[in-house]
Amino acid sequence: MKFSKNKKIQKLIELSKEATMLKGIGEVLDWDQNVNMPKNAAEGRSYQLALISSITHQKVASDQFGEVVKSLDKEIKENPAKFTLYDRVLVRESLRAYEKATKLLKDFVERESEAKSKGFEAWKEAKEKSDFSIFEPFLKKLVDLAIEEAGLLGYEDSPYDALLDKFEQGLTEKQVEKILSPLRDFTVSFLQKVLNSNITIDGEILKRKFNTQKQLEFGKELAEDSGYSFDSGRLDIAPHPFTTEFGTSSDVRITTRVDEGNLPDSILSTIHESGHGMYEQNIDKALDMTILSEETSYAMHEAMARMWENPIGRSKYFWNYQYPRLVRAFPKVISLGEKEKFISAINIVEPGFIRVDADEITYNLHIILRFEIERDLIKGKVRVKDLPEIWNSKMQEYLGITPPNDALGVLQDVHWSYGLFGYFPSYSIGNIYAAQLMNKMNKDIIGINKQLQEGDYTKIRTWLEKNVQQYGKVLTAGEICEKATGEKLNSKYLIEYLEDKFGRIYKI
Amino acid sequence: MKFSKNKKIQKLIELSKEATMLKGIGEVLDWDQNVNMPKNAAEGRSYQLALISSITHQKVASDQFGEVVKSLDKEIKENPAKFTLYDRVLVRESLRAYEKATKLLKDFVERESEAKSKGFEAWKEAKEKSDFSIFEPFLKKLVDLAIEEAGLLGYEDSPYDALLDKFEQGLTEKQVEKILSPLRDFTVSFLQKVLNSNITIDGEILKRKFNTQKQLEFGKELAEDSGYSFDSGRLDIAPHPFTTEFGTSSDVRITTRVDEGNLPDSILSTIHESGHGMYEQNIDKALDMTILSEETSYAMHEAMARMWENPIGRSKYFWNYQYPRLVRAFPKVISLGEKEKFISAINIVEPGFIRVDADEITYNLHIILRFEIERDLIKGKVRVKDLPEIWNSKMQEYLGITPPNDALGVLQDVHWSYGLFGYFPSYSIGNIYAAQLMNKMNKDIIGINKQLQEGDYTKIRTWLEKNVQQYGKVLTAGEICEKATGEKLNSKYLIEYLEDKFGRIYKI
Repeated sequence: MKFSKNKKIQKLIELSKEATMLKGIGEVLDWDQNVNMPKNAAEGRSYQLALISSITHQKVASDQFGEVVKSLDKEIKENPAKFTLYDRVLVRESLRAYEKATKLLKDFVERESEAKSKGFEAWKEAKEKSDFSIFEPFLKKLVDLAIEEAGLLGYEDSPYDALLDKFEQGLTEKQVEKILSPLRDFTVSFLQKVLNSNITIDGEILKRKFNTQKQLEFGKELAEDSGYSFDSGRLDIAPHPFTTEFGTSSDVRITTRVDEGNLPDSILSTIHESGHGMYEQNIDKALDMTILSEETSYAMHEAMARMWENPIGRSKYFWNYQYPRLVRAFPKVISLGEKEKFISAINIVEPGFIRVDADEITYNLHIILRFEIERDLIKGKVRVKDLPEIWNSKMQEYLGITPPNDALGVLQDVHWSYGLFGYFPSYSIGNIYAAQLMNKMNKDIIGINKQLQEGDYTKIRTWLEKNVQQYGKVLTAGEICEKATGEKLNSKYLIEYLEDKFGRIYKI
Repeated sequence: MKFSKNKKIQKLIELSKEATMLKGIGEVLDWDQNVNMPKNAAEGRSYQLALISSITHQKVASDQFGEVVKSLDKEIKENPAKFTLYDRVLVRESLRAYEKATKLLKDFVERESEAKSKGFEAWKEAKEKSDFSIFEPFLKKLVDLAIEEAGLLGYEDSPYDALLDKFEQGLTEKQVEKILSPLRDFTVSFLQKVLNSNITIDGEILKRKFNTQKQLEFGKELAEDSGYSFDSGRLDIAPHPFTTEFGTSSDVRITTRVDEGNLPDSILSTIHESGHGMYEQNIDKALDMTILSEETSYAMHEAMARMWENPIGRSKYFWNYQYPRLVRAFPKVISLGEKEKFISAINIVEPGFIRVDADEITYNLHIILRFEIERDLIKGKVRVKDLPEIWNSKMQEYLGITPPNDALGVLQDVHWSYGLFGYFPSYSIGNIYAAQLMNKMNKDIIGINKQLQEGDYTKIRTWLEKNVQQYGKVLTAGEICEKATGEKLNSKYLIEYLEDKFGRIYKI
């Protein structure tokens, strides 16, 4: 039995369903804004997003919701054995949502939602014109709102802790510093070794002109091959690739972008997003339309995407099967004899300006840079107007390069325009989870590389569904990690993987 | 001054905005269901549509809304001069919405919304498989709900009156019979003359294979040429062409369909929908996000679409300019020398099974058939299970042909699957409005045919915006008609137009 027949539990499911599906409606509006919306519609959409967000908030913050949740919480404390695991987690997460919602006043939620919608539009324009000043006042407002939110949510040490907690329950600024610091030490020193090595890889093959429509179609095939269901999803073009779901595992949509002169950007983004998509599609149907039908944490979500993008999607085993199919899609652009060249090219380590184009080594430095900046922003240690300068100087310090303009610098990511502060660390923590899970999966599945070479992803898909994805929010990321690998999160597997893979490539 | 600064009026605008934009959110969900939604998502979407419909209903039926509206209604009755025209109509329409909403109980609205969403899915499947039995139980439920709704709304003579009133304020079954009967008498007799004439037109040119992507692009250009704004709209593919707006004139979307072997179906549908679209885009911005930012009636909406589709879009003047452009889009399919053949072909009169493919003469018979059937359904004179038989026998009676299957018969239209009963008459009444307005426009604009020949639609667009579209719901359809043409609605202009145009073509 998953949820018990207890009347109050059933009532809570019903209330949770309303709130979850309203949130899902907001996600439809947001997806549409990114994928389809005509440009004059921004004002009306901004109003609609604020309205739906406010109504959703009212549902979760309602006395009715609070009474049911609090009374169940009390009953569970008195007699936990009367309830199932699903019941208990539903109550725990509902209580968490209720407390968060009642701390955030309706007025705050409305202001935040409107600021996000306007911020997104301003960011789009600023990025297009590479003019930070267009985005600056909107970002300033979003930072102020994030600080206000941290105050309302409460924290012990740092306001940034309250924001981290939104994405990774219980994670603190100090812990992030502790997790990321060995990775930074390793990366900075390993990157020097790579740059000093005698190996240079020619990436010319990736810069040839690949028809955008065919890129999209090939990406769609890869997504379908790996197990993403188009009966419960779709693939569209958006300025920044993302995955979204509308309250059920039956409508999980992914987006990508295409650029004729940048094949890997599109297809690896599509593989990445289909990894996210499969996670949400594979959540236990018993959790459908409830607050538990979601990723357990952003880092685990990222792990599911990164695993497909990097250890799988950039491996020679994967491309031994897929490369000939890529040649069939672009027979005039690449040839069968260029397979090794292609595989090397998608694994070039080279400091660059754009995070989403970064290789597996430098990627984490992009994240560490963003983490440090947003931590300081929230703590009021740096000013929004100084961001372009701070960004550029950190890029120089960690990666040895300075962006020529803000579109290639501080304006490149959508996140802050959505008010997402405390989110960036999840990317690197996701890489760490991915490496640790992959390490265990390699032990559990015999002949995994052979299966990749044959284009058979069934066992990988099943392993991930069974060990991670099915749980939704029923287990925390930490519980999933320990249950699946027998260990707490440990960055040594990522460091080992990077050292081994790129040590071979660059003969270090 | 459009709306006055009166505090209660401002409060009503604010409340109206919430309700209008929530309704707009429902339209986004609905548009997405038609255009994008993956097939497994139907259940979740059905829940979301019911939920948003119920919340919208609560807003309009709320005591707060009722108190503001009723108190304003009283003030206006006491001292109308204190208020502007916009104020008075806002109050009148808000009161009408409030009374309708309070008559329809929350429970009814939820059941209806869910039945519509499920009915739509069942209809799609039934039509695909040409199997009426799949749709039958859902349609039965929708008819029962329509009868229940008529009872809740109230009526004097016939329950069908209550449903008609939803689309054409104040219109009754008796009036419709009176308006449509001279048109039916004329059409049945005129159709015989056409079929007995010695002229036969070869429609082969329209049945050639036209690349669907290029059909879409050409339709898009036509829509843009005629004045539909893609900055405030977009064109997509849907199973049944429709136009929708999301609460503002800045996001009005149109859809069409494409079939390689049926060029006119796609491009004339696109012209038709862009006519609808322009109406909603040209409503006075001062009405934006209020209950008045809508078509004044469904028939007037239809008139705006029909005018572009028929008297303009099927005229030789229009194609004298557009045909060479069509040849440039399909140089291997048609030639410049075939212009007369093309213009004749899009004006062939020939009884057919499908309403949306019908010519200007037979079209109204398709409507009269549907009107008679739904009137009898609602009055309980016929049973849902007998519809295929009734449909087919009426087709034989009016048009002299019998559909070979239900996909080409009773299952062809989406309307009933959406619970739209009382809507069909608007199409023919729309044709009547279109002809009457066109007659006046021809007198007001000097050299209109010359302008069409030059591809200059500026004056037509301006005339329609000024005389019809800008008003939104501020004037009723009847008021607009009288103000613009100096006369009440009169079917003689449509009969004259049809007799003249097709009399020439068929030398009658």
